Amino acid sequence: MSNRGMRLRRQSQRARVAQPAYRQIVNRYKPTEVLDDEQIEQIHCASLDLLETVGMKVLGDEARSRYRSIGAQVDQGEMRVRIDRALVLELIAKAPASFTLRGRNPLKKVRAGDGHTVFVSVGGPAYVSDLDRGRRPGTYDDFVNFLKVTQQLNIIHVEGGCSIEPQDLPVTTRHLDIYEAQILYLDKPWKPLTIGRTRVRDAIEMVKLSLGETDEQIARDPVFFGVTNTNTPLVLDGPMSEAIIELARARQPVCVTPFTLAGAMAPASIAGALVLQNAEALAGIALAQAVNPGCPVCYGAFTSNVDMRTGSPAFGTPEYTKAAHASGQLARRCGLPWRSSNVNGSCSPDAQAAYETEMSLWGAVMGHAGIVNQGAGWLEGGLVASFEKLILDAEMLQMMAAYLDPPAISSDEIGLAAIAEIGPGGHFFGSSHTLSRYEKAFYSPLVSDWRNFETWQESGAKTATQRANDMWKRLLKEYEVPAIDPARADSVAAYVARRKEEISNGKSVPV
Amino acid sequence: MSNRGMRLRRQSQRARVAQPAYRQIVNRYKPTEVLDDEQIEQIHCASLDLLETVGMKVLGDEARSRYRSIGAQVDQGEMRVRIDRALVLELIAKAPASFTLRGRNPLKKVRAGDGHTVFVSVGGPAYVSDLDRGRRPGTYDDFVNFLKVTQQLNIIHVEGGCSIEPQDLPVTTRHLDIYEAQILYLDKPWKPLTIGRTRVRDAIEMVKLSLGETDEQIARDPVFFGVTNTNTPLVLDGPMSEAIIELARARQPVCVTPFTLAGAMAPASIAGALVLQNAEALAGIALAQAVNPGCPVCYGAFTSNVDMRTGSPAFGTPEYTKAAHASGQLARRCGLPWRSSNVNGSCSPDAQAAYETEMSLWGAVMGHAGIVNQGAGWLEGGLVASFEKLILDAEMLQMMAAYLDPPAISSDEIGLAAIAEIGPGGHFFGSSHTLSRYEKAFYSPLVSDWRNFETWQESGAKTATQRANDMWKRLLKEYEVPAIDPARADSVAAYVARRKEEISNGKSVPV
Repeated sequence: MSNRGMRLRRQSQRARVAQPAYRQIVNRYKPTEVLDDEQIEQIHCASLDLLETVGMKVLGDEARSRYRSIGAQVDQGEMRVRIDRALVLELIAKAPASFTLRGRNPLKKVRAGDGHTVFVSVGGPAYVSDLDRGRRPGTYDDFVNFLKVTQQLNIIHVEGGCSIEPQDLPVTTRHLDIYEAQILYLDKPWKPLTIGRTRVRDAIEMVKLSLGETDEQIARDPVFFGVTNTNTPLVLDGPMSEAIIELARARQPVCVTPFTLAGAMAPASIAGALVLQNAEALAGIALAQAVNPGCPVCYGAFTSNVDMRTGSPAFGTPEYTKAAHASGQLARRCGLPWRSSNVNGSCSPDAQAAYETEMSLWGAVMGHAGIVNQGAGWLEGGLVASFEKLILDAEMLQMMAAYLDPPAISSDEIGLAAIAEIGPGGHFFGSSHTLSRYEKAFYSPLVSDWRNFETWQESGAKTATQRANDMWKRLLKEYEVPAIDPARADSVAAYVARRKEEISNGKSVPV
Repeated sequence: MSNRGMRLRRQSQRARVAQPAYRQIVNRYKPTEVLDDEQIEQIHCASLDLLETVGMKVLGDEARSRYRSIGAQVDQGEMRVRIDRALVLELIAKAPASFTLRGRNPLKKVRAGDGHTVFVSVGGPAYVSDLDRGRRPGTYDDFVNFLKVTQQLNIIHVEGGCSIEPQDLPVTTRHLDIYEAQILYLDKPWKPLTIGRTRVRDAIEMVKLSLGETDEQIARDPVFFGVTNTNTPLVLDGPMSEAIIELARARQPVCVTPFTLAGAMAPASIAGALVLQNAEALAGIALAQAVNPGCPVCYGAFTSNVDMRTGSPAFGTPEYTKAAHASGQLARRCGLPWRSSNVNGSCSPDAQAAYETEMSLWGAVMGHAGIVNQGAGWLEGGLVASFEKLILDAEMLQMMAAYLDPPAISSDEIGLAAIAEIGPGGHFFGSSHTLSRYEKAFYSPLVSDWRNFETWQESGAKTATQRANDMWKRLLKEYEVPAIDPARADSVAAYVARRKEEISNGKSVPV
């Protein structure tokens, strides 16, 4: 390379946003426990009582058959499934305590559970917002831009599914365009949609084409984290039960998350909401294990509460954090990896969004969540994916990851000789102990501004949210499509074309 | 009271800002530990090595005499004090593991240490800011307004000393006006200034007059939390050593806080900074115990780091949080209560201020800090007291306090019968289980807005910071001076007048 070329390359490297590398996060600190063992047992047993006596209403025909085939008591008329506690425990005991996920870049592989933590970006919002254009219904362009910034942020291990609903695309085939974009614009793991069999099957077919792999290969080395919900209280609907069955069949990690909103669809107490959560999550996991014993699963926890004055759902509340820590205890009681979330109820990416996010994150991380779902970009109780919040969350996740690296303690790190040499009243600015640690000693932020007031003011007195606006645009500008084998991209495109044709002809599920 | 009077009174009660009562906070969760016992021992022993071999430079004459009198090795020329490890350990072993503080309202008494947590508001800033008038040098009026809002917020247990420096008052007598305002406008505990003997002695005399009590009474039942700093590395200056001596003599809890900024006045490593912190804090506490064995003390921890790119101090970083948790471990190793802080490096009460605050608060609270100093209102690395940040912090502290109430688990809370009765697909809105918990089930916020986007937008689309601006003005408007015995107020005023006269005549220390 010429001198000029090298200089340009150095400049371009220098110009790129500095951030830590994509890496596995391991939590070596003890989890925080808000309940004692006896209390955990009380909740656990109450939830098993519930499954035995009241049971779940299961709307999917295949799901009911599966439950019946393993010995559950099924009332077909009421579509009610009651499961004996011994059977539940026998089934969940087959599940592994952790699982891995991988992207098309083989270096982007992470483990969740058993002290390993994975950060997943937002999925699900119908709306998008940024400071420039405000809040609006999502489009395909917004979705792709969000994907690109998500790809750029190394702290996001797994893309969160459809971050922004592309409302400008036809509903019946939208998922195909979403998957193709996830495959092309990302080289990290991505999440499939889980509403019904079709969307899950298409995702599996397409990810196989993108990797040039077989069913057996992805079953051995999973690629998808699929999140399903129960309809609290005590209902498992048809599409969700199909997703559980399809994901379990393909041995892709399937998460069962009851949305136990205390004071609304769950009792107005943390204890009551946790009992419902535990019952519904275990019922769903039992189904997955009935389909494919030993398949990877994840205990979903999303217990929050409504504001009792207005009925609005609230997130990142003190109750939310306590429920998260307790959920971790309940999942560990059953030897299961668990999923928590990074949520908030703010309508703006402001101080409230930040402190509610932190309450959620500390609940997740110190509860030893294997998956922190909705980890970046979630705003307004999940109705909106915010570009600025995506950046602010990435900063908060990066800080959490740095916190989880225990302080290094050694004679060298302590530097007693350096301290003695400098002595009373000196300083460590130019000491060899400092110089040898200069570059990597401390966390370096993404958007936090630590300059003094005068300098900050001269730079425009921007808030963190305004700096986040600059940052996502910069990351978008720096984005480069991660190289993909053109033949694989073509086969994905051909699949999308064929399936669109089939769907327009009324054939929903791929063969 | 007439019907109309009762109605008016009810209306006025309803209109007041709703908040939890002033109450003791107890942390029943296990502290988070980021180091193992062996690592703690390594830091602890290195700090004792340092005190034996390098020692502290002690600028106060009386302090050096005190050290010498208990058997430390004192080099008068170099003003260097070296203390044998056995002597340090013997002295700190005399200190109690917790202490109490009380205000002139006898109900406002709190314990710090041994699982008891106390929140203290900001102290020290030279500047004040609010959204209406921006950032400016502090005045007496600002200081009084800040006092009033601080008095209003029940979550603030102890006022943090001079929250805003009244730069419009003469330096030599300013402390007298500050103390008189603290006495009149607050009925909760307040902090004295600790720069030199005069300010401490005046505080003690004035608080005695305000309570109508003697030296013996306040020694038995302390009123003051006094914070002193060492000049890291390894210097204890004259005024600070005087404050330690005077507070210890009066048996008022004295905190010794080294400002160990890693990469500047401390090594560029958490390990090195913690060793210096431990050495300096223990040296100061040993002095207090030498003056008055068994007097209440507090291990001060303030380890943070500079931004290695700009040299700016940074707060609420991942390193800060880890250092806080490790500091709690070091303090517990010595059986001492410890002080942490709620800090951030933002120039604006924005999302950065909020997430750095949360990183600090989780460090403090889950490190089992007895005192969370600078707990509300601190901005811009401590240069500014912000009215909006005071409110945002109060919200975050309230949330933390609610988090520290463990979830209630009982058959009644679980409500299995209620769940069974409602059954699959129902809801809990109107159930008797919900109605009986309606009012107190969940945390009710101060400024968090959980309404939907449309309602939020119709109400002006205010950020949390803007709502905090509304809130402090509302609290200020609702403020009422807590009643004080006029004779005591008069004796305080007379003291101030007399001391101003004396100081103008060159007599600094009160007799």
